[in-house]
Amino acid sequence: MRSGCLVSVVVRFYEGLDVRNKALGNEVHQKKRKGDMEAIWLAGVKSASFVPNGLTSYMKEGMRTSVEAILLVQEHNHPHILLLQIGNTFCKLPGGRLKPGENEIEGLKRKLSSKLGANSPSFQQNWQIGECVAVWWRPNFETAMYPYCPPHITKPKECKKLFLVHLPEREFFAVPKNLKLLAVPLFELYDNVTRYGPVISTIPQQLSRFQFNMVSS
Amino acid sequence: MRSGCLVSVVVRFYEGLDVRNKALGNEVHQKKRKGDMEAIWLAGVKSASFVPNGLTSYMKEGMRTSVEAILLVQEHNHPHILLLQIGNTFCKLPGGRLKPGENEIEGLKRKLSSKLGANSPSFQQNWQIGECVAVWWRPNFETAMYPYCPPHITKPKECKKLFLVHLPEREFFAVPKNLKLLAVPLFELYDNVTRYGPVISTIPQQLSRFQFNMVSS
Repeated sequence: MRSGCLVSVVVRFYEGLDVRNKALGNEVHQKKRKGDMEAIWLAGVKSASFVPNGLTSYMKEGMRTSVEAILLVQEHNHPHILLLQIGNTFCKLPGGRLKPGENEIEGLKRKLSSKLGANSPSFQQNWQIGECVAVWWRPNFETAMYPYCPPHITKPKECKKLFLVHLPEREFFAVPKNLKLLAVPLFELYDNVTRYGPVISTIPQQLSRFQFNMVSS
Repeated sequence: MRSGCLVSVVVRFYEGLDVRNKALGNEVHQKKRKGDMEAIWLAGVKSASFVPNGLTSYMKEGMRTSVEAILLVQEHNHPHILLLQIGNTFCKLPGGRLKPGENEIEGLKRKLSSKLGANSPSFQQNWQIGECVAVWWRPNFETAMYPYCPPHITKPKECKKLFLVHLPEREFFAVPKNLKLLAVPLFELYDNVTRYGPVISTIPQQLSRFQFNMVSS
């Protein structure tokens, strides 16, 4: 089982960094046939020598900055957050990576228009980017992020900033076919790290200092 | 075991609200002798009919508001938070309950002076109360708090506000003999709900939006 273990380490290392490497992981798994252990071992060693995309872009552009939006809506007199669901489980905030040197606010507007913007001149969104409510740091080429830069880390690999985006009373979104737009209540996110991960599950705490003005329906 | 179960519910209900009732819980536990189940059952029922202090003050003064201070200090180039340790395990932020009608900022200053103030005219603190970084709600007469007021709760029992308090480069504190003042790093608090509870363990997330100016030593 030693070779199987190596493969799993390689896949975990690349996870979330590079879709191409994930595909490679699948390829490796497909090779897992009886009596074919040598092949897996070799595949594992070979894939470990690949350079992950995250590293390549870090070498070229330095630390990645990504920006994400907290879009608040109201349902049953309780704040809900809009999340994009991919498949049946994974949820993410709308947003993404900035271009090198791009302004955070402008970059988030660009990302929101590309992810949720209706491609029609009659539904032009005017994104009102508000307060930065949280900053997360990825110290290494791994998925783990922290709400501070660990003291021994001098060169973090990613900085993710979460911004409140103030919506008008009525807004139209265009959602890509492979995604679902969900309104998830704060009480569902709170203390639910297993389902939403550490970043999204602590949004209720980060929003707690705000007083929400509920719109009477 | 039915009676034992009742007692435990009663104790949990009073927990953290009233020291007198905790003592009562102990008394009940002391009665737990072989063949004395009837006594425990009676004790459980009896104690359940007691009115907890939280309820009495709620009836008189309405929702309780408490204020707590996040005092940041720097060690090894990483932010630390000052916590008061009671005994060997329980940690709390300095602060406390406001008097009815008391201003939050003034109340926090009063609490900080009473908990940490040196009782000497040469060490007069000038507390600089800063931003409110979190608000927690206690919907019922129980210890559980949430970073939002649950939608079905119209009359929450407590509202706790956490404020950043900006310290000067040098400060003196007087710590009561039964307490210890600890500087706990953010990385120790983060994701450590079992040791620090839900309020203190998510302070790193609430502070993540701030950029800390480290003082060069």
